[in-house]
Amino acid sequence: MTKHQRTVFYLSDRTGITAETLGHSLLTQFDGIQWEIISVPFLDDIEKAKVVSVQINQVADREGNRPLVFSTLLNPEVLEVIKQSNCRIFDFFETFICPIEEELHQPFARMAGRSHGLQHHLSYFKRIAAINYVLAHDDGVSPKQFAEADIILVGISRSGKTPTCLYLGLQYGIAAANYPLTPDDMHTKALPPVLVNVKNKLFGLTLNVAQLHSIRSERRPNSQYASLVQCEKEIRWQESLFHECNIPYLDTTHISIEEISAIILTRRGLRRQLYG
Amino acid sequence: MTKHQRTVFYLSDRTGITAETLGHSLLTQFDGIQWEIISVPFLDDIEKAKVVSVQINQVADREGNRPLVFSTLLNPEVLEVIKQSNCRIFDFFETFICPIEEELHQPFARMAGRSHGLQHHLSYFKRIAAINYVLAHDDGVSPKQFAEADIILVGISRSGKTPTCLYLGLQYGIAAANYPLTPDDMHTKALPPVLVNVKNKLFGLTLNVAQLHSIRSERRPNSQYASLVQCEKEIRWQESLFHECNIPYLDTTHISIEEISAIILTRRGLRRQLYG
Repeated sequence: MTKHQRTVFYLSDRTGITAETLGHSLLTQFDGIQWEIISVPFLDDIEKAKVVSVQINQVADREGNRPLVFSTLLNPEVLEVIKQSNCRIFDFFETFICPIEEELHQPFARMAGRSHGLQHHLSYFKRIAAINYVLAHDDGVSPKQFAEADIILVGISRSGKTPTCLYLGLQYGIAAANYPLTPDDMHTKALPPVLVNVKNKLFGLTLNVAQLHSIRSERRPNSQYASLVQCEKEIRWQESLFHECNIPYLDTTHISIEEISAIILTRRGLRRQLYG
Repeated sequence: MTKHQRTVFYLSDRTGITAETLGHSLLTQFDGIQWEIISVPFLDDIEKAKVVSVQINQVADREGNRPLVFSTLLNPEVLEVIKQSNCRIFDFFETFICPIEEELHQPFARMAGRSHGLQHHLSYFKRIAAINYVLAHDDGVSPKQFAEADIILVGISRSGKTPTCLYLGLQYGIAAANYPLTPDDMHTKALPPVLVNVKNKLFGLTLNVAQLHSIRSERRPNSQYASLVQCEKEIRWQESLFHECNIPYLDTTHISIEEISAIILTRRGLRRQLYG
């Protein structure tokens, strides 16, 4: 079946992150459509809105379908210009703000850029400190400072430790270290000594053999390191280590970095602090 | 004025990222309220929903105000249990899915975890490659490979290059390198030689003197490096270098990493690819 194409606009006064995140989660619920995406961040005056309006009308004419427009526009005049175009508009603020005002008995501030703005200097420092911690403790570096970690991810090479640590630091301000399990450790079913005293902070990452093989083959094609035999051996060993030592772990084969991070926070009871 | 407290629940079948993004962007529009936030990700069966329902009712009794609930729940039975509680519910899918179905003339898939799931193996590899690129080219490392960068951020120490590069890699799959401008470069108003051939990829980050002083003081209190005089000298020099060499740049003093990243992508015309 060939997919048919529809165009979607993300319009925002500021970064567009909210409009994109929300629109994306709705559109992924519809199969068989090839989405052409046009993001217009920083749409903050009427002249720019008129240009976008013309663009919307051109797309509608060309495709024979009006575009979908997801908006977090706060300026009512800008929004009005867009509404005059040939589109189906979904405005996140207009939809929800009124009932929230009613519930809270107070008007909203109508200030753009609040959700991704730099409002809390303190939380900015905490976030930067977390990122620095992650960078300074990647791949088993400086294990003496592991006591300061909020969490320490463990797993074999290419199990996804580094991207997950970075996401935890950037998105949630979590001081996440990671430590690689290597074939050198495989002679035993005991934890590497450096991890023994921080056992309660450990969380394991594993994945299936085919996926590990595929990821390692990207890095070093046809190597022993990437071979199915080696991948299977390392995975079987690390999973039995996790069992033996009672370390919680997660199979990441079919999930994204966002999901891995959210699951880890939930399972370890770590407080989520949203910056993004 | 003391803030009064209200409680908000973020309920989701999966990670909760969409529900949190939605709620956060709306609630930051209301001043004078201290929000107590309770995130419940992976709320995927009726038994769990009953526990949350009890919790909602307890909060409502205790605070004398019903909690606000932002939901991206897809399971109608789970949602129904929550609706029976003493809360004001804002359900994201229920609100928007019907009009989109109508517009597209097709039903939605009702599949949890699509928006942050691992749907595209190819884009997973691209994302990991971007993160690896960022890590391998932080702080001026391996400038010989700058030709492969999508963008190269330049600026003095603590101008925010590293967190911005990481965010560009993680969130947008952008191969972002960065190169520090140091006091050693300050004898001239010419670009460091290694940057001359990649001038069209450069983007400068600057900030105001007080903020740089405050950030550097966190790192090395009372040092010459953190002194107001030194901060001012370096900022003045780098801004005149950006002018002289016609390098686009941004004052990041009052904006977040998310905003810096979105502005850079827009101003350099880089294609945004959303993963989060």
